[in-house]
Amino acid sequence: MRKIVYTLALIAGNQVGIAQGNSATTDSAMIASIYNEVMLHGECYENLRYLCKSIGHRLAGSESAAKAITWGKTTLEKSSADNVFLMPVEVPHWTRGAYEYGGYTTKGQQKEIALTALGGSVGTDGKQIAAEVIEVKSFDELKALGEEKVRGKIVFFNKALDATLINTGAAYGGGYPIRGQGPSEAAKLGAVACLIRSLTLADDNYPHTGATNYEKDVQRIPAAALSAVASRQLSEDLKNDPTLQFNLQLSCEAFERTMQANVIAEIRGTEFPNEYITVGGHLDSWDIGEGAHDDGTGIVQSIEMIRALKAIGYKPKRTIRAVLFINEEFGNDGGETYARICKENGLVHVAALESDGGGFTPVGFNCDLSDTQFEIAQSWLPLLEPYNLFRFRRGGSGVDIRPLKDDRIALFGLNVDGQRYFDYHHTNNDRFENVNKRELELGAAAMSALVYLLDQTGIPTQK
Amino acid sequence: MRKIVYTLALIAGNQVGIAQGNSATTDSAMIASIYNEVMLHGECYENLRYLCKSIGHRLAGSESAAKAITWGKTTLEKSSADNVFLMPVEVPHWTRGAYEYGGYTTKGQQKEIALTALGGSVGTDGKQIAAEVIEVKSFDELKALGEEKVRGKIVFFNKALDATLINTGAAYGGGYPIRGQGPSEAAKLGAVACLIRSLTLADDNYPHTGATNYEKDVQRIPAAALSAVASRQLSEDLKNDPTLQFNLQLSCEAFERTMQANVIAEIRGTEFPNEYITVGGHLDSWDIGEGAHDDGTGIVQSIEMIRALKAIGYKPKRTIRAVLFINEEFGNDGGETYARICKENGLVHVAALESDGGGFTPVGFNCDLSDTQFEIAQSWLPLLEPYNLFRFRRGGSGVDIRPLKDDRIALFGLNVDGQRYFDYHHTNNDRFENVNKRELELGAAAMSALVYLLDQTGIPTQK
Repeated sequence: MRKIVYTLALIAGNQVGIAQGNSATTDSAMIASIYNEVMLHGECYENLRYLCKSIGHRLAGSESAAKAITWGKTTLEKSSADNVFLMPVEVPHWTRGAYEYGGYTTKGQQKEIALTALGGSVGTDGKQIAAEVIEVKSFDELKALGEEKVRGKIVFFNKALDATLINTGAAYGGGYPIRGQGPSEAAKLGAVACLIRSLTLADDNYPHTGATNYEKDVQRIPAAALSAVASRQLSEDLKNDPTLQFNLQLSCEAFERTMQANVIAEIRGTEFPNEYITVGGHLDSWDIGEGAHDDGTGIVQSIEMIRALKAIGYKPKRTIRAVLFINEEFGNDGGETYARICKENGLVHVAALESDGGGFTPVGFNCDLSDTQFEIAQSWLPLLEPYNLFRFRRGGSGVDIRPLKDDRIALFGLNVDGQRYFDYHHTNNDRFENVNKRELELGAAAMSALVYLLDQTGIPTQK
Repeated sequence: MRKIVYTLALIAGNQVGIAQGNSATTDSAMIASIYNEVMLHGECYENLRYLCKSIGHRLAGSESAAKAITWGKTTLEKSSADNVFLMPVEVPHWTRGAYEYGGYTTKGQQKEIALTALGGSVGTDGKQIAAEVIEVKSFDELKALGEEKVRGKIVFFNKALDATLINTGAAYGGGYPIRGQGPSEAAKLGAVACLIRSLTLADDNYPHTGATNYEKDVQRIPAAALSAVASRQLSEDLKNDPTLQFNLQLSCEAFERTMQANVIAEIRGTEFPNEYITVGGHLDSWDIGEGAHDDGTGIVQSIEMIRALKAIGYKPKRTIRAVLFINEEFGNDGGETYARICKENGLVHVAALESDGGGFTPVGFNCDLSDTQFEIAQSWLPLLEPYNLFRFRRGGSGVDIRPLKDDRIALFGLNVDGQRYFDYHHTNNDRFENVNKRELELGAAAMSALVYLLDQTGIPTQK
């Protein structure tokens, strides 16, 4: 099976750009050619190493995000894109600060525990908050307690994600409202701070940050995530010592919004240059770890797509873009700005594809498609199954590309084996070492193969 | 979708053992029940921790393999198997010894490089071999050099695995003959030792051991694997200094064959107790690292299958066995003995399933089936796809169960996402820390679900 594909690939290697037919044979040869290019000469792994190790984490608004933008532009230029440009985007500017502390004394024993501020949290004004802790599992449980029991206390949401959900994204989705709305819900009842159990399926000592969303006109209280281990420990200690005083100090600060940029690279279309296919990930990350799986991998895969298509000499019919979006994590400014400017300029998007589920082995694509589009996508499966791409799964694409949604566009997200994703997500452990080279490359090749198919068909909208 | 399944699972939880119908509803409820049991109460991860950390690696014939056999029996008993027994198996006894050295001096610089003896290699009699190195990529290239150029030298097979193969097992298969036959092929031309590039797709400094097979009546020469990094380094140094003297010392020793045992546990069938379904992995490992992915994971998953089916109160129609095979790595004595004794005792096997591809996320099952059996298996996919089990893939099952092959038996192997497997395989880095809890558990649940379906249908043979 594979032998046949390779033979075709060798033939295609000479013919590419000369004869691009629509037959399944040509398609399979082109896809083999893409995979061989990425698996043998791929640069995404070394690009990721640079992004993680030489730039590091890169929260939107930070100096390192600015460095990442410059690096992204240079790297796309080196990848032989026809043109590369920046699109200015206004982003928030928030800092965690140098000092975070959470701990308590119980039964004469002093305990410091692993926590980190939620993204956007207010700080504690250079002081420690000291208060009793009230532990709940849900908003309903919190509300049932009422203001009398909550006022003056630290609310601790201690709810584990649902381990029985096979789709870890669904498990994360189940916990997400607590991180987003928990602090404001607690504040409404007079709480002085809010702690949450990290949104993770791993049983370890890494706290997971992530955006919290203060509700308008509600007191903004400091908010932090405890590691899974710390959550269990605090919960146990509260059973034995329900009035223990928790000490919390956060040195977060919010600054004026600032200008950064999306980085955009194009391979211009030869037949329909005014029809666009956008492929991207987000260049920003949280400000701990290295933003490797979230979303350094999506960035280097998008760059690799440009590099590989150029390297094999592919001349697309339509204009293919790689977009390195800025600030997915903290307001989606890059995605919103990109969609707005595309609309203002009358750009017609045929399709968009995002990789933001980590650089793990791809198993297919999530998609947001009309029925007709879905049928077309399904018809590609025989071409993709030799690469262990098993499915188009309806539902979801990517946060950055979702604002492009209209009646026409086909939206896709790389669907990966996400079992490990929420072990690393938004932690100090989201590091280059936890990305596997082949898994990363297979994702880049899968994305490039889908782009090829989308470019060839134009995937019409006919509902 | 998942909500419906859970509701059914709750119902099934009360009814199991009372009403086990054949309807798709009951099947999906049973499978949900199995998954929930394993994902919420699974013991395989902690069992693996014990096997790796408290027993460690366990080459057949070693004292630690004997300890593992005792542990396996006790753990299966704790898992509520109806009966557990040992089946004596004669195994080889070989030791690597305490001292391994490979290095050379080139351009005045002394270099020690990462290597390890191949399994079964002879030692160097307490001395260092010092000889020139001749580098080749294939048997053909070696033979073309001829005895004149090879005699007295160390042959270095420096061939990387094929990174373009999506199935890493196929890439490994491509390199396998060099490890198995390389030393004898080199010895036939008068080589004094043989070095090979490790059979790995990773670019790191871990040497990978694994069995070599000396040909009868050919001089047995010392044989070792170099890490990928060391192979590249040696190759570069040979370009600049083709006559460098390589120094090799290995302290391997072979001893008399000895008796160890397969560990066998049963849940007795209620309707057809004389029809057997065997599920297993191999208890032995190579003698470096901890034998985590190879094949501690298959062992703890097989034990978990017994535990989970008992925990949910499942009463199988047929007799279900977990078998912890001894010595897959170095002659397959456990598998051969098991098949022989089953045949001698007239045991009828309906099916067998092995997990020996690492404890990674399962994507389906490999299978060795008649056309009729394959059709039946395919009909189960709708029940398995909610758990991201995408396929039954023809070809292969497992080394330990293959000797059971006859006209009747349906053979399966857990098919996992194997991109990382050959990074760890047979190295000092095959450790517990490199196994993900959820990925391991999903494999155990998938195996248990297939056992349930096999047990319910009996998967007839009709060709």
